[in-house]
Amino acid sequence: MSIRIFQTIAELRTALQTERMAGRSIGFVPTMGALHAGHARLIETSARECDITIVSVFVNPTQFNVQSDFDRYPRTLETDVSLSESAGAAIVFAPSDKEMYPEPLDAHVDVDRLTEHLCGAFRPGHFRGVATVVLKLLNIVQPSRAYFGEKDAQQLAVIRRLVADLNVPVEISAVPTVREADGLAMSSRNRRLPAEERRIAPLLYEALLGVKKALLEGENDAQNAKKVAFSVLKNAPIRVEYLEIVDSRDLQPVQKINVPVLIAIAAWLGDTRLIDNLTYTP
Amino acid sequence: MSIRIFQTIAELRTALQTERMAGRSIGFVPTMGALHAGHARLIETSARECDITIVSVFVNPTQFNVQSDFDRYPRTLETDVSLSESAGAAIVFAPSDKEMYPEPLDAHVDVDRLTEHLCGAFRPGHFRGVATVVLKLLNIVQPSRAYFGEKDAQQLAVIRRLVADLNVPVEISAVPTVREADGLAMSSRNRRLPAEERRIAPLLYEALLGVKKALLEGENDAQNAKKVAFSVLKNAPIRVEYLEIVDSRDLQPVQKINVPVLIAIAAWLGDTRLIDNLTYTP
Repeated sequence: MSIRIFQTIAELRTALQTERMAGRSIGFVPTMGALHAGHARLIETSARECDITIVSVFVNPTQFNVQSDFDRYPRTLETDVSLSESAGAAIVFAPSDKEMYPEPLDAHVDVDRLTEHLCGAFRPGHFRGVATVVLKLLNIVQPSRAYFGEKDAQQLAVIRRLVADLNVPVEISAVPTVREADGLAMSSRNRRLPAEERRIAPLLYEALLGVKKALLEGENDAQNAKKVAFSVLKNAPIRVEYLEIVDSRDLQPVQKINVPVLIAIAAWLGDTRLIDNLTYTP
Repeated sequence: MSIRIFQTIAELRTALQTERMAGRSIGFVPTMGALHAGHARLIETSARECDITIVSVFVNPTQFNVQSDFDRYPRTLETDVSLSESAGAAIVFAPSDKEMYPEPLDAHVDVDRLTEHLCGAFRPGHFRGVATVVLKLLNIVQPSRAYFGEKDAQQLAVIRRLVADLNVPVEISAVPTVREADGLAMSSRNRRLPAEERRIAPLLYEALLGVKKALLEGENDAQNAKKVAFSVLKNAPIRVEYLEIVDSRDLQPVQKINVPVLIAIAAWLGDTRLIDNLTYTP
């Protein structure tokens, strides 16, 4: 059977109710479209672990804190549907803005503490938008499992916390970051990069690897470890927004590396903002 | 079969999963215990409309903005279970604070606009606590329908909005306020009233009836209509916290009565706070 596409919540729910009543497990991959090999990995994982996989494609306006970023975000529904089908999805849910937000919401979800640092500190309102739309989508799809990429580490932590705190009946699965051959983390925003910026973009990953290597070799001071990254990046036309080493559990910055940590970076190449991260356990 | 009592989320979910798989509709009545005839009406309505009815009994600490009110809130689980059974419930869910809040939450839900006036203006944090715990309970029980009393009109509006905005898959049913023979709205807090305060407590309802009568007789100015209520209450030892006429849809105060409105009062009798309301459609 070929992939089905739904644009309304009512149609999707009707279709899923049939699956649920038949006792089938439902895997869910929420996306903003512009699908790449990283998304394919999420969909393939879901298709392997669940009876039926739903991919949502929705460029959520409420999580963009800069209007031009929303306007410029790539929209490629046709190829997204093809990729979803090839990766094993049974349904694509592609609602309009009006379907998801028939009027401005009064209700919204915040996740404190985990959103104080990293992207949360630089993108006001972003994680409120993410948490709220993900909760809406989980309520619409009611999946057994939902799949998120480790590349968006803070988003993953926020959603895990949201699900735990609010008793959302879903299992959250994390899928490792997929990288290009030169190490650059897959991202829908990569396709915006001009050739010269694309050439230097892998430096973000190299900088993170440099920090991790220092930690593996015994450095246990966060400031010293971070210096390695800055030396990797120092001559490149890259503006670092943040480079942080945070406790993996609560995403609070650490001075001494004596707990599992996340090494995370956000940086601007021209007018494109990229993020990446690695984990390290002492 | 006699009523079953569960104290853990896991046990409750297992029991409900069986019911759900058997295709039974689940009615849910969330309460803070100290059940009275108003709750009985909610439970009876659910028992009539759904295959199986769950009553939760949980005095939610996060919605009390005054610690002494939480401490003094009546706890009567044994009689609550009896009343629930008599009214037709199959299950009582009575979790501990630790079961609902194993640690302080980072995630919480706010509903803006609807919470600006009435109780929202006088009980900071109250509706965040209500919205968050109700969402948790809805996620735990996953009912087909949930029942709320019209006596807590602002709470009902907040929950309806929460459910609509976040696409929570449940139908919210409102049940009319149940009153004592003398007109006092049923409330768990009524049992705290000393005899003299209990005697004058029906004045709140009389004040609301006075306002409604004025509107029915053609008064269409909110300030003038409210004067009727204040004249009913003026010699009684009652401290009015608010008396408002608000648009029923968004709970914003109105000057002219040309839309359906809620006439709502909150007042203190000694150290007990009571609320009540009536609706009026021009």
